[in-house]
Parts: sequence; C-alpha cells; structure tokens
Amino acid sequence: MSRATDEIDALIAHLARLPGLGPRSARRMVLHLLQKREQALHPLLAGLTRLASSAQNCQRCGNISTAPVCDICTDPRRATGEICVVEDVAALWAMERGGAFAGRYHVLGGTLSALDAMGPEELGIPALLDRVQTEDAREVILALGATVDGQTTAHYIADALAGRDVSVTALAQGVPMGGELDYLDDGTIGAALRARKAF
Amino acid sequence: MSRATDEIDALIAHLARLPGLGPRSARRMVLHLLQKREQALHPLLAGLTRLASSAQNCQRCGNISTAPVCDICTDPRRATGEICVVEDVAALWAMERGGAFAGRYHVLGGTLSALDAMGPEELGIPALLDRVQTEDAREVILALGATVDGQTTAHYIADALAGRDVSVTALAQGVPMGGELDYLDDGTIGAALRARKAF
Repeated sequence: MSRATDEIDALIAHLARLPGLGPRSARRMVLHLLQKREQALHPLLAGLTRLASSAQNCQRCGNISTAPVCDICTDPRRATGEICVVEDVAALWAMERGGAFAGRYHVLGGTLSALDAMGPEELGIPALLDRVQTEDAREVILALGATVDGQTTAHYIADALAGRDVSVTALAQGVPMGGELDYLDDGTIGAALRARKAF
Repeated sequence: MSRATDEIDALIAHLARLPGLGPRSARRMVLHLLQKREQALHPLLAGLTRLASSAQNCQRCGNISTAPVCDICTDPRRATGEICVVEDVAALWAMERGGAFAGRYHVLGGTLSALDAMGPEELGIPALLDRVQTEDAREVILALGATVDGQTTAHYIADALAGRDVSVTALAQGVPMGGELDYLDDGTIGAALRARKAF
C-alpha cells in the first residue's frame, strides 16, 4: 500500500500497543479522529503537545507533574508528616481517587528486583530516608502491592528505617468491599482472619 | 486541584469520549503515555501531527487520504469500471479488509435523512452520476447497510441511475459466515430463503 495508508496503519499499530486498547478499538479511534479532525483530532493533539512539553517527574516524590515539584508536594495543607510509599504513579492516582490520605507520597518507580536490576538506589530509597529527616516525618505508610516483590520491598524499607524516630505502617490486608468469601483466595482469607478485630 | 492535574484530567476526559475508549482505559492510556514519554508519547504525537496536517478527504471518492486524490483512485489497476458505493470510510475500510473488491469507491458520508438534512447533494450523488459518465463505469455496487436508511438511499441511487448504461447491483443478504440459524433474526432468515440458490 502507499504512503497515506502506511502512515495511518503505523498510527493504529502504535495505539494498539497502548494499555487499554487493541487493534479494533485503535482502528475505530483513528477513524473517528480522521473524520472529526476539528472537533476531535486537533484538541487531542493540543492536549498531548502541552503535556509532552511540560510533563516531568516531581523532583521530590516522583509523581507526574507539569512543574519541577508537584502540586501535592507544594500544597502546604499536605505537610502532615505522613509519607505514603507507593510503587508507581498508577498506585498514587488510585490512592488519590480513594481520597482517604491527606499527606504526601514517595513513588518508588518499581519494586526491588535482582532480575530487572532494581536496587535501593534505583527506587530512590536513600532519597526517602533523607525526606524522613528533612520533612520531620512521623509516619511512613507502606502502600505496596500484596505480592512477593511488593512485600520484599516493604520489608527492606522497614529495615532501612529501623532505629529512626518514625513509625512504619502498612495498608491492612483483608476482605475487599463487596467481596464474597466464596470468591476470595485462601491467602486473603487467612490474612483477614489473622487481622480480625472486635466487632 | 491545580493546573497540572487539570490538564491531565482534561486529556483523559477528551480521550474517554472517543469511540472504543472509556474513562478507565483513557486513564490507563494517559498514565502509560506520561510514564513512557520517549517510547510512547513522542512517537504518538509525531504520528498524529503528521496526519493532522496532511489528512483530507479524497476529492474524487471521499476516502481519507494524505493527498488530494487517494491511493485507490490513483491506482491504475483499480480502474475496473466498477464503483462501490459505501456509507462512510469505516465501511470502505471494512470492504478493503475483506479484500474481495478490486475497483474504486464512492463514499456518501451518510444516508438520506430528512431529520439530519442529508439530501442527495450532501451525499455527493450528483458527483457519483458524473463519475459514472466520466469513468465509463459498467457497474455500480451498492454496499449500503441493511437498514431502513441504507435501503432508502440504495433505492434513491438506483432510481437516479435508471436509464443509464450501467448495471446497478447490491451486496447479497443472507446467513453470515459461521452464523447459526437459531441466533439469526427473522428478517435475515427470510432474506436468505428468498435468495436461495441451487446447491
């Protein structure tokens, strides 16, 4: 096929590799963008261009931001002395959607992994220890996934903070909202049982 | 929330309105783009920018193209004297995926509709009649949807071509590949029965 179709096909192929899209939805999306150039393609292009030039990682916590330091780190109301450690920005957004946390974050950008050559330096753990000192943090909340890698990383951070004047906590494990026991895995049921509370 | 988050939220909201995407998949897509700026965001931006500046509708058939006349209309091997009339570019792409048609297209851009003020002029039906003349077409294939609007439009075009030296045909209606009778609607079964052929 010729140049025109090649360019459209390349764009569809690129979109189809993004999470949340497949070949069919990428094709429908591109077709819509090409048919509604004024209403759909140009605003999308403007938004992506703005973000591509301004998006960066917050120097302090690693969140995605359009400024060198993100909104959460610059918001004085969030200087609560609590630092929530998350694996990535997706987890930070999930915590923010929950709306239950009013402190600041520390984004690791992954979990400890010998295979992926992710050591404490790559995860910014020394920077976290510095922040605990300079921000005079009272509590570090480990909001890491209940996976082997997530828990290994949590234990490493807890060990690194041992002996400092800061309490280290972790998200509770248990039955999720709306969860039926019949559909839960044994690990979750066991964890929920061990963490049982007076009713 | 502040400026940074507003821009990201606006982009997610814009993407979520595109066909094939919803709020969750738009969020995952934007997060991926922002985290993989070099590998994902910049190539996407480059592809969209190229298409936004070059995409246009073919002056002859209405297909999406990066040149004033599209590849199909300029391909001499496709000057077969057959013009396939489709409702929109999505239908043209679907026909091309099928790979069974080697002629040229005419994209109406809709169907006749009094409500949407779509008359013969808006659908380029006079231009189609001109093309039948100038391209010396032997056959006009009506590849319109088996809907009331699609069939109304097909009848209108067939009437407009009556008296000209061109045969007007339409896609066969019947049982789709892999279709089970139990799941087919009565209209399709009736049409397939009326169009039955010697086995």
